[in-house]
Amino acid sequence: MTTAMNSRQHALAYVHDHRPRFVAELGAFIRFPSVSAQPQHAQDVARCAAWLAHHLREIGLEQVRIIPTAGHPIVCASRHYAAGRPTVCIYGHYDVQPPEPLEEWRSPPFEPVVRANNLYGRGASDNKGQLFTHVKAVESYLKTTGRLPVNVICLFEGEEEIGSPHLAPFLMAHRHRFAVDCAVVSDTQIPASDRPAITYALRGALSLELEVQGPQRELHSGLFGGAIRNPLLVLCEIIAQLHDARGRVNIPGFYDRVRPWDRRERLYMRQVGPDDAQILRNAGATMAWGECGYSLYERTTIRPALTVSGIGGGYQGPGVKAAIPTRAVAKLNLRLALDQDPHAIDHLFREHIAQITPPGVRTRVRTFMSAKPARIDRTHPALGAAARAYHLGFGTPPVFLRSGGTIPVVNLLQAILGIPVVLMGFGLPDDRIHGPNEKFHLPNFFKGIETSIQFLAEVGAWQAQDSDPPHAMRAQAGRINTV
Amino acid sequence: MTTAMNSRQHALAYVHDHRPRFVAELGAFIRFPSVSAQPQHAQDVARCAAWLAHHLREIGLEQVRIIPTAGHPIVCASRHYAAGRPTVCIYGHYDVQPPEPLEEWRSPPFEPVVRANNLYGRGASDNKGQLFTHVKAVESYLKTTGRLPVNVICLFEGEEEIGSPHLAPFLMAHRHRFAVDCAVVSDTQIPASDRPAITYALRGALSLELEVQGPQRELHSGLFGGAIRNPLLVLCEIIAQLHDARGRVNIPGFYDRVRPWDRRERLYMRQVGPDDAQILRNAGATMAWGECGYSLYERTTIRPALTVSGIGGGYQGPGVKAAIPTRAVAKLNLRLALDQDPHAIDHLFREHIAQITPPGVRTRVRTFMSAKPARIDRTHPALGAAARAYHLGFGTPPVFLRSGGTIPVVNLLQAILGIPVVLMGFGLPDDRIHGPNEKFHLPNFFKGIETSIQFLAEVGAWQAQDSDPPHAMRAQAGRINTV
Repeated sequence: MTTAMNSRQHALAYVHDHRPRFVAELGAFIRFPSVSAQPQHAQDVARCAAWLAHHLREIGLEQVRIIPTAGHPIVCASRHYAAGRPTVCIYGHYDVQPPEPLEEWRSPPFEPVVRANNLYGRGASDNKGQLFTHVKAVESYLKTTGRLPVNVICLFEGEEEIGSPHLAPFLMAHRHRFAVDCAVVSDTQIPASDRPAITYALRGALSLELEVQGPQRELHSGLFGGAIRNPLLVLCEIIAQLHDARGRVNIPGFYDRVRPWDRRERLYMRQVGPDDAQILRNAGATMAWGECGYSLYERTTIRPALTVSGIGGGYQGPGVKAAIPTRAVAKLNLRLALDQDPHAIDHLFREHIAQITPPGVRTRVRTFMSAKPARIDRTHPALGAAARAYHLGFGTPPVFLRSGGTIPVVNLLQAILGIPVVLMGFGLPDDRIHGPNEKFHLPNFFKGIETSIQFLAEVGAWQAQDSDPPHAMRAQAGRINTV
Repeated sequence: MTTAMNSRQHALAYVHDHRPRFVAELGAFIRFPSVSAQPQHAQDVARCAAWLAHHLREIGLEQVRIIPTAGHPIVCASRHYAAGRPTVCIYGHYDVQPPEPLEEWRSPPFEPVVRANNLYGRGASDNKGQLFTHVKAVESYLKTTGRLPVNVICLFEGEEEIGSPHLAPFLMAHRHRFAVDCAVVSDTQIPASDRPAITYALRGALSLELEVQGPQRELHSGLFGGAIRNPLLVLCEIIAQLHDARGRVNIPGFYDRVRPWDRRERLYMRQVGPDDAQILRNAGATMAWGECGYSLYERTTIRPALTVSGIGGGYQGPGVKAAIPTRAVAKLNLRLALDQDPHAIDHLFREHIAQITPPGVRTRVRTFMSAKPARIDRTHPALGAAARAYHLGFGTPPVFLRSGGTIPVVNLLQAILGIPVVLMGFGLPDDRIHGPNEKFHLPNFFKGIETSIQFLAEVGAWQAQDSDPPHAMRAQAGRINTV
């Protein structure tokens, strides 16, 4: 224990001494426009992976590899402390969401700047900044005591924002190299800078594109307006039908597998979770919307949602153009509640669209990504270690919250590797992830590094007192995977 | 009569000898991307006006002027044959619709090419090619006999495609210079190359933009999906409500002033107009849509229509982005039946949108253009001259048809100058005006020039037999303006 305590103190002192450099390095990381969804940025994603791998080597990690996939590469690294010691998998993603609409950014998305203690830039919070907390924690150990309190394997992917399509096959194929005891993922938010939180549930996701094809060529709206079915109008009519008057998703069978939560869980959620007013404040909105009978925290976590995230069709330039367009496209993002299977929902959606497509047009559905919901046992000892680390890092114990977001890897790690995933977030509700002017609160960056230092030490210390903790943890993990 | 006949023959022979040059000159005219709706093309519109003015001087027209407006310039020119002789106003527009979507053009829109007897390019038919028939007719007289059978005033504007916003003030201010006896406008279509037609009615138009404003910043659809009202969804819901189940526009009061036509007019329309199958063929469609109880010809001419011509909102790039956008915009193009007033409809629309806007979002309506419907008396002598000219030019007498399109100048010329407007079109239904791969059928171009030569001679000849025809025509015109 004494050694561990000492090494923690050394590592924490190192953080204190190198804060400006850490921020500068995070800025360099953010400068790569590693937008995984946009083919024109494929080279930028690759360059970002190369930079990250080089950085991991520089801080002292070993076996650093850039592993190509059919999409964007995975960056792996490890540091073997001692055989028989516990191993923590640190997961993060170095790809980012598209920065559009560019005109709404106060400063360019890939030219990070610090304003009022926040670092602004696409990926600052999601996920480069949060990923970097663990990288800097590892560096702080290695550059002081030269050792880590646990074995570490880094798993940094470049396709999280497009649904991690190549991560499952990679993990399946390399399962033997990931004989780890738990994973830590910092890709969630905490309610406030002084209110840390551990996320214990995530919604699943399904991203679809719905295209309506109308006339073979654009038609003059004077000559044909009123006589030919308009694909834009059909798209609007279909989308308008996808919710009923009570704010529920109007697809037959959609709610069949949505779990009805008991009074106790909903009471717990009400006690620890944000109230409606807080969620509206986080959104910068004044009015709620959605499914009747549920609080906003419930609507965004234990209930599914269907969001239209984009529509395009016809003329969108300045002024007017008087034509019936040939096609219209909508992008839909569904969030799925526990027990909803994205593939089953995908199937229901396609069947429903085929049913309601009117004559005179054709519809086509494309699936871009899908990810299963995930739940983590709040009572697992790995989460206990995280709770103690938070308490030490933030000066206050964390609450346990659900998130409406999706991190595909969580379900994959739990299902494929059979380990618990600790969701230890450092983002804030107003970080504007996925939107313009994304930022990362720098005090959270530093506390995040300190919390990671504590977490690695806590896992190491906890394991040191137990002869066979990995097995115990795996048993727990097995239980987790069934939820 | 003999002189007129001779001069016609000389002019017609000239056309025959100069066809290739005429096509080349029309190509040069089309090369200007004179897109009036797009601010980035303002200089191209001005350059096109300068080219046209220069061309008019070269063919022998006098008093050629480029008259600036608060928008794009008007090009005027005249040729005074003799005091007391009738005067024909030739109207056309040198601006064009936006060429988007560019990827659907077989050859670039502003690089005209001839394929299978058609000249392809934006504006080839609407309206540069049709305008040019009269320019070449005038040239054919002036370069042979050096005279015209009538006085001519050319009025070529650069804002027709954006609703001619500056034409009415110009005509009001310069009414004294437009003491003409009739106007000829070639900006319509005929059913087929061997079936000429005179258009005697046009729908009005109203182009609007509807914007829905939602959250102040883009919101992550995982964290907020299901809790905050989405402006894209609201836009779809509003648009879906704008038609009822019978295909009627669902805005209170919208049909109040739509004239119910008697059995006789509808019978006449059925006899001379295209049937449903023909209109579907023209559209390249297999299935009709629209208001119950009316043929497609009726739906597109004597009934109003509301067309969604464009929608944009949220992310439209490749792949997915998981966010609730801040705003969504739709462009709407309404076509109005006789007696519907665009300003009154604009008001009804705004009132209705305000009524149905749900809480949690704001809506904003912008008006881009409006134009009144127009009707021309089929029995007017000026139309008789046009009918004889068509017969001579195409070898067959024309039919009288309604058009669903809008030519704002027609109502303006009738109302401000008190003259009848002869709508003598040379376009074909498959010219794809306003769409990609717009073309002009070259045989129609040549027949159009010949018909214009005949029309000018017929007006001159008809006037020569009558001591006071301009007054007679004006009296008729006064009647026309009241419909």
